[in-house]
Amino acid sequence: MIQGIGAAAGVAIGKAFVLPSWEWDLPESRLEAIDLAKEFERLYEGIRTSKHEIEFIRNEFKEVVGGEESSIFDAHLAILDDPVFMNEIQGIIERQYKAAEVAVKEAIDHFVTMFDLLDDEYMKERAIDIKDVGNRLLKHLLGAPEITLPEDTQPYILVAKELSPSQLVHLNPSHVLGIATLIGGKTSHSAIMSRAMGIPLVCGLENNLKAPIQTGDMLIVDGDQGHVYIHPNESTIAHYTEIRSKQQYKKEQLQLLASVEAVTKDGVQINLSSNISSVKEMDMALKYGAVGVGLFRTEFLYMDRVTFPSENEQFEVYRHVAEKMGSGSVVIRTLDIGGDKHLDYFSLPEEDNPFLGYRAIRISLDRKELFKTQLSAILRASHYGHVKIMYPMISSVEEVRGANELLREAMTELDERGIPYNRDIQVGIMIEVPAAVAIADLLAAESDFFSIGTNDLVQYVLAVDRMNEQIAHMYHPYHPAILRMLRSTVEAARQAGIPVSVCGEMAGDERSIPLWIELGVHELSMSPQSLLKIKHRLLNTSAEEVKLVAKECLKMYTNTEIEKLLNDYHDSHRSFRSMTGERQ
Amino acid sequence: MIQGIGAAAGVAIGKAFVLPSWEWDLPESRLEAIDLAKEFERLYEGIRTSKHEIEFIRNEFKEVVGGEESSIFDAHLAILDDPVFMNEIQGIIERQYKAAEVAVKEAIDHFVTMFDLLDDEYMKERAIDIKDVGNRLLKHLLGAPEITLPEDTQPYILVAKELSPSQLVHLNPSHVLGIATLIGGKTSHSAIMSRAMGIPLVCGLENNLKAPIQTGDMLIVDGDQGHVYIHPNESTIAHYTEIRSKQQYKKEQLQLLASVEAVTKDGVQINLSSNISSVKEMDMALKYGAVGVGLFRTEFLYMDRVTFPSENEQFEVYRHVAEKMGSGSVVIRTLDIGGDKHLDYFSLPEEDNPFLGYRAIRISLDRKELFKTQLSAILRASHYGHVKIMYPMISSVEEVRGANELLREAMTELDERGIPYNRDIQVGIMIEVPAAVAIADLLAAESDFFSIGTNDLVQYVLAVDRMNEQIAHMYHPYHPAILRMLRSTVEAARQAGIPVSVCGEMAGDERSIPLWIELGVHELSMSPQSLLKIKHRLLNTSAEEVKLVAKECLKMYTNTEIEKLLNDYHDSHRSFRSMTGERQ
Repeated sequence: MIQGIGAAAGVAIGKAFVLPSWEWDLPESRLEAIDLAKEFERLYEGIRTSKHEIEFIRNEFKEVVGGEESSIFDAHLAILDDPVFMNEIQGIIERQYKAAEVAVKEAIDHFVTMFDLLDDEYMKERAIDIKDVGNRLLKHLLGAPEITLPEDTQPYILVAKELSPSQLVHLNPSHVLGIATLIGGKTSHSAIMSRAMGIPLVCGLENNLKAPIQTGDMLIVDGDQGHVYIHPNESTIAHYTEIRSKQQYKKEQLQLLASVEAVTKDGVQINLSSNISSVKEMDMALKYGAVGVGLFRTEFLYMDRVTFPSENEQFEVYRHVAEKMGSGSVVIRTLDIGGDKHLDYFSLPEEDNPFLGYRAIRISLDRKELFKTQLSAILRASHYGHVKIMYPMISSVEEVRGANELLREAMTELDERGIPYNRDIQVGIMIEVPAAVAIADLLAAESDFFSIGTNDLVQYVLAVDRMNEQIAHMYHPYHPAILRMLRSTVEAARQAGIPVSVCGEMAGDERSIPLWIELGVHELSMSPQSLLKIKHRLLNTSAEEVKLVAKECLKMYTNTEIEKLLNDYHDSHRSFRSMTGERQ
Repeated sequence: MIQGIGAAAGVAIGKAFVLPSWEWDLPESRLEAIDLAKEFERLYEGIRTSKHEIEFIRNEFKEVVGGEESSIFDAHLAILDDPVFMNEIQGIIERQYKAAEVAVKEAIDHFVTMFDLLDDEYMKERAIDIKDVGNRLLKHLLGAPEITLPEDTQPYILVAKELSPSQLVHLNPSHVLGIATLIGGKTSHSAIMSRAMGIPLVCGLENNLKAPIQTGDMLIVDGDQGHVYIHPNESTIAHYTEIRSKQQYKKEQLQLLASVEAVTKDGVQINLSSNISSVKEMDMALKYGAVGVGLFRTEFLYMDRVTFPSENEQFEVYRHVAEKMGSGSVVIRTLDIGGDKHLDYFSLPEEDNPFLGYRAIRISLDRKELFKTQLSAILRASHYGHVKIMYPMISSVEEVRGANELLREAMTELDERGIPYNRDIQVGIMIEVPAAVAIADLLAAESDFFSIGTNDLVQYVLAVDRMNEQIAHMYHPYHPAILRMLRSTVEAARQAGIPVSVCGEMAGDERSIPLWIELGVHELSMSPQSLLKIKHRLLNTSAEEVKLVAKECLKMYTNTEIEKLLNDYHDSHRSFRSMTGERQ
């Protein structure tokens, strides 16, 4: 047994397939440039092809994972547009008369060395990205074949020194049972992706591995414990086979809950809805029993394109989702770009603090035509299902009024065009900026519903960018300030008689259920994958009992105390775990 | 009369001195590198000299202006450390055998062209910075003389195409009466600096100027109206001489208020203290009648050095300030780096959103020895004056407790060393993170006083980086959410019986006085330059009357309404303006 780092949960049992490394030799004949113009042409052609390929991979990945992780590939695309990187390559061709592939290889080496030297985690990550993108470009310039994984064999356990996101995305989850890598850690891009794809992963084996693993070796990968067994004996295989079946059984049991109503033992009902970022995710939401779409992120419609989507294109997608959801409601959030999300064809300013910058409703109110096109498309879809509109990043009453004014204009224009829509469409806002909490009563008077976006709210309230590794440990959804702000928001909504939904990651965290019940939240909206887990928990909850727990939490002074109480309560009630024999 | 843009207020009357432009020709003899090692040595020597020069300029500037504007020069220093820029220069020397000055000139041209092409305001600004720094480096490589301004003539009005911060910093305000430039706008670095230095500036004359201004031409620069008069007639000169004396008279009248107590007509007293960022500013604070130092920013002690300052070095400065302030209190804020402030010798991670990152108390609690050294120095100074400690960026009860734990350790160590200090030193916190407002009651139980940092608080509450031009118009201190949060913070402090001070820019804004009186704020701390203006206003204020105004504000729904009411009230009471005949 080799000890590594368990980076994606689950158990896999099967034979190893060792991945060849992605490195290329330069042919002697191509060291010098003969015709400069030709080399530049080859370079640009290679860049174009690489971009298309990365875009294709990103879309494929988004289909499989359905999350926001695909932004890794946006970073890759950005490298191919980076003037400094490109300038370096062009300079080598132009000044040193070298062939495009030589220039690319030298530029990669140059930047990777430079960034590695800087001894800065962020820069080291960038070095890996440049290597990955540069190797892809090199592949095209050399006409080298894509490294493919066998698909005609038995499903296998993939073994590699290191997996780049580009390599990982080509995996077919039905062929790859698990992954073992020599280097890498829990927070690497590959680890994030494995978790998203649900493939067990153990990494960081390098130091404990005595002899290299060979293709065909029998392996067990235990992503929960971070163990890899090479040539395990019969009893180990039997042991792990049993664990695997229990995990499988648990999944099946949970799936049976899809059609059950989400209600506590003592009759408190909470709507469990789904956040979706693509049409594909809609299928998963339905499969796992979502009663509605609590947050339809519309950014995907604007990405992987060369221009803004037309009203018709958007309308078709919104209608499709609305019809699929049937009588359930679909809350469509208007465009939320800026921050860490960008569009290729809409240049946003370089910002020192993009999260405190030009994003979401701020852009929509600035670019009125763009916004009205989206509002018209949503309005048209409202004729075909239970559609609602939601504005992101609201921080003032003026913004809601300004957006509603444009909504009325869009309605008038549809009237003139004789196109039907739901005149009484409900219009709500995201509560995710601290200012919105402080004036929740004023905003409630202008809104049909609230949806609390806890991810951004926690970031702003605590002034902690959770993507920043240096301070990620300070990102505390259970901070007393957050609990109080949740309480005052729900209270303001109650006074105004409008419903409140929660759509951040807290909604998918079982530990937070006592809070929602005590506060009186009407709806929780989460990733499709979390729905059954939360429902199972709700079904086994006594509202009366958890209200007492939540009341205690609301009196506490620190995040530490609150989290401990919620964890302890949660641990003492994990009935399902014991039922299925899952390990701690 | 030529119409331009009034970028720094005030009137100047005098003769023109036209500044030669800062550009260098390369001597023919130095186009090629003869000895590569020699060229590199010259380059590094030039970089070292340029760095020292920029550091010197920065310090000089800080002495004069005393503000935070000197960070412009930090950006300049960063360019000389930028691996991409330096790599470009080195590459040209190494691969093309060119002399260091040629490489620097080509690299400047290369990056300036590239950044200009990007059509992005931020990048264009960076292009100007690179040009400025590159020309300085070039100057040293060429051994060219510094462009100096005459100091032995009559004071003059400086005329230039454009002024870089490097040029502006060399001005002696007692020799330069005013400035007229052909290009540039209100938000340029030069405009910010002119305002800080109190030199009238009109810029953007290029399009309206028919013939070039010559050295010796008689000029009037009217920075209030944006007018420049060339060869004005007698009556214009007389008119402007009168305006200038009235402005001078107003200054003198205000100065008389320095020793007067700050109290409203009906007897409400508010302590007017000063924010200081250097020892030099202490003199200005005293000159303008500050009763205390409400915010002593200690960052300057850590800057322009190669290592952290010792306990003794810090102690000497803190004691000096404490003694100077006499019986008045000096609130020393512990180190607030990170965000947009960095130290050369303490590498901080590259962050996507530094304002939501690793900064201030977060760093102090991480780097305990560093923090304890500062606490010990402050404690020692507390023996010599009325010193208080303040922690920045507090967002949780744990942070205050953690910091106080280290403070107790520092006390114990001083006891062991037999060094005296004030055992009952008051310890307060900055309220600037939204979380701190939400748990102000919990924090009040752990603190001796609050100081509200409105600049950061507004940024976080509204999620608006005010340095971001794209959304700076959304930075609203008079947003109803801010007013409510100010109210609840003061209320929590009142309940706990601790005093509240305000130390952000709002404190120096006359329009906000009604709010502070209604809320019951005990102290306002502001830049020394704002003290007399605010005191004058307070002396002419009826507390009873402005409380009614503030009560109205607190009921309003939008920033627009609140600002309008405060502006209207302020305009209808600007008694002093009419008294001195100041123009609107």
